[in-house]
Amino acid sequence: MKKIEGWVTAPQGFVAAGVKAGIKVSGNHDVAVIFSEVPAACGAVFTTNKMCAAPVTVCREVNSHPYAQAICVNSGCANAATGVRGLEDAKAMQAHCAEKLGIKPEEVFVCSTGVIGHFLPMDKLFAGIDAAVEALDESEGESCAMAIQTTDTFIKKAAYEFEVGGKACKIAGIAKGAGMIHPNMATMLTYLTTDCAVAPDVLKRAVKKAADQSFNMVVVDGDTSTNDSMIVLANGMAENEIIVSEDHPDYPAFFEALCACARDLAILIAHDGEGATKFLEVNVIGAATWADAKTAAMAIAKSPLVKTAFFGEDPNWGRIVCAAGYSGADMDQNKVNLSIGGKYLVKDGLNCNVPAEEMAPIMHEHDISMTVDLAVGEEKATVWTCDFSYEYVKINGEYHT
Amino acid sequence: MKKIEGWVTAPQGFVAAGVKAGIKVSGNHDVAVIFSEVPAACGAVFTTNKMCAAPVTVCREVNSHPYAQAICVNSGCANAATGVRGLEDAKAMQAHCAEKLGIKPEEVFVCSTGVIGHFLPMDKLFAGIDAAVEALDESEGESCAMAIQTTDTFIKKAAYEFEVGGKACKIAGIAKGAGMIHPNMATMLTYLTTDCAVAPDVLKRAVKKAADQSFNMVVVDGDTSTNDSMIVLANGMAENEIIVSEDHPDYPAFFEALCACARDLAILIAHDGEGATKFLEVNVIGAATWADAKTAAMAIAKSPLVKTAFFGEDPNWGRIVCAAGYSGADMDQNKVNLSIGGKYLVKDGLNCNVPAEEMAPIMHEHDISMTVDLAVGEEKATVWTCDFSYEYVKINGEYHT
Repeated sequence: MKKIEGWVTAPQGFVAAGVKAGIKVSGNHDVAVIFSEVPAACGAVFTTNKMCAAPVTVCREVNSHPYAQAICVNSGCANAATGVRGLEDAKAMQAHCAEKLGIKPEEVFVCSTGVIGHFLPMDKLFAGIDAAVEALDESEGESCAMAIQTTDTFIKKAAYEFEVGGKACKIAGIAKGAGMIHPNMATMLTYLTTDCAVAPDVLKRAVKKAADQSFNMVVVDGDTSTNDSMIVLANGMAENEIIVSEDHPDYPAFFEALCACARDLAILIAHDGEGATKFLEVNVIGAATWADAKTAAMAIAKSPLVKTAFFGEDPNWGRIVCAAGYSGADMDQNKVNLSIGGKYLVKDGLNCNVPAEEMAPIMHEHDISMTVDLAVGEEKATVWTCDFSYEYVKINGEYHT
Repeated sequence: MKKIEGWVTAPQGFVAAGVKAGIKVSGNHDVAVIFSEVPAACGAVFTTNKMCAAPVTVCREVNSHPYAQAICVNSGCANAATGVRGLEDAKAMQAHCAEKLGIKPEEVFVCSTGVIGHFLPMDKLFAGIDAAVEALDESEGESCAMAIQTTDTFIKKAAYEFEVGGKACKIAGIAKGAGMIHPNMATMLTYLTTDCAVAPDVLKRAVKKAADQSFNMVVVDGDTSTNDSMIVLANGMAENEIIVSEDHPDYPAFFEALCACARDLAILIAHDGEGATKFLEVNVIGAATWADAKTAAMAIAKSPLVKTAFFGEDPNWGRIVCAAGYSGADMDQNKVNLSIGGKYLVKDGLNCNVPAEEMAPIMHEHDISMTVDLAVGEEKATVWTCDFSYEYVKINGEYHT
């Protein structure tokens, strides 16, 4: 497996495009289409929010089928909290894109991101879809990625080459998401394409597992959006022997590449946390169960007190072990250990009294890793997050509805 | 029942005092003692954090007995994450105070609040306890309240007079807590005294129920501290017929006064949220269960996106219904209603398109109330919180260990 440069058009048989349809007030790219030349096995996971946006309802229906061929996205309007009309609009968006592509509506995933509670401007959207379909090309991966952004400060992409049964395969993905980031899932849209041949049921299970190890391990502010969607299309054009089960000898190579690509994108989202000045990796080890490890890591990553301490470059270990303590995870408070940047601050539950000047260079880094040992077992988990800055408050206090 | 002015010395038979023992770097009051002239029925609840401070362990033991007679508190050092030595120090604090008061160690609750991970300065503490015991007086309620503060910007007190079986009773309380506020419980210390005669087992159950309706409904930042304690002493000096069960005719009058006092203190804590510029009341109605109502209200109150929106005076209803949606509470997204300051922003899941200028005066208020109707049942709950400001980030980024 090898990391490569490339957009979602890197795997064979995929084209894409993004255009400016006038939905975003800024006038930036806001409608994107990703298209596979042949029907592709599809796998997807969506927000668990009970206020789910209309397009998510439509996408769940698409994902109940084994194959799909396109993804149609707009930014600037989330089509969420829009009731019956919102659902009709999402279906019209799907039907319009399908007609333009010459495929069936149920082969088109539709996604929207942006402001909640407004109806889609259908005329602009339809014109945008028409223009995007016209522009579809292998060379338009970047414009496609630009059209799915909202408050992102940079475009998130990842791509890998891997070998499956002697055939060279590629997998590539793009993502958007900066605020409102929390498992299950963030205001996060992510699309992965691969030319690897995978049976639809195997793909669907693999996508769910990959999401749990990547996007569901990222926290920015603990809010879960109404629109989060991760969609993977696998069109089989690499002509490898189709992976028909998790026991197939080629499954591990495929799953490893899928997870690597998803993890890279997830980490990029944490790097782009709204107003973030630090990227934080929270490792919890010595847990009784994986669920406990994740619970403790999440509690630390979500704690505003921990996040503001890192913003202030303060190695406030008390807040970190305190968050582990209230998470509900089993731990031994007299054996707990904590290190930041490899330096132990707490051993066997006691302050190591590390001088502030020894910690200063570690706390001054942009990327900081910490490890909490709950000292009751062998399980571990890693969560990625960022600090909480003045800028976060500013961005979210001023981003008006 | 009538609200009155007064400190914890307002009920008959209680004296208190606070002194400057040099534990706080600021030099402010930092050791307090509250004493009942006669043994008092005691009831208490403590943090659920698995990293619980040494004094909490000692207090749990005290609370396993029916009666106690004193509360001894220091601020400036939390005696948390201090291992075996911390526990020995807490017991020595208890024994020293008991000896000075001429009572048994198991009759003295001990509490500490302040920085985590440092050992108590025992010499200063003992001298402080000696001075506080010397100073015990009915007139020293205020100095006692001052000695339990840390980052609080004002002192929190509440008192009520109520009648029980023809006898005039009083209940009074003080509290500290500003940041790290979250149910189960906050970095919150609260002490209530009453001269009402209540059987110990009835009191213990009543305190737990009162905490669930007051302190456990307040959120500032979602962090749960290692030291939170609510302790109630009821010394019976009002000479009412002792309330021996929840079925006793006088129980409702007592419980109502206890809850009113606890709720007043809890609301004051939310008012003093670190860096807060707004006080927010989150009402959830139409829930299937009380637990669902509380879950949804908590999710809204904890959401950094909601809290920063209120700081920006933005009626961002999308974030509010979104938080209710991801809380896990059952709701009907096509029937959900939301009002802020009595003005409907969402009806039947749809944007009411209220003009910004109509909402501006409501959002400009210091105290703002919102009501979310989940539209699936009859249950309701209220949570109190505050907004998230630049100042919160500043306070917590700069409060060093």
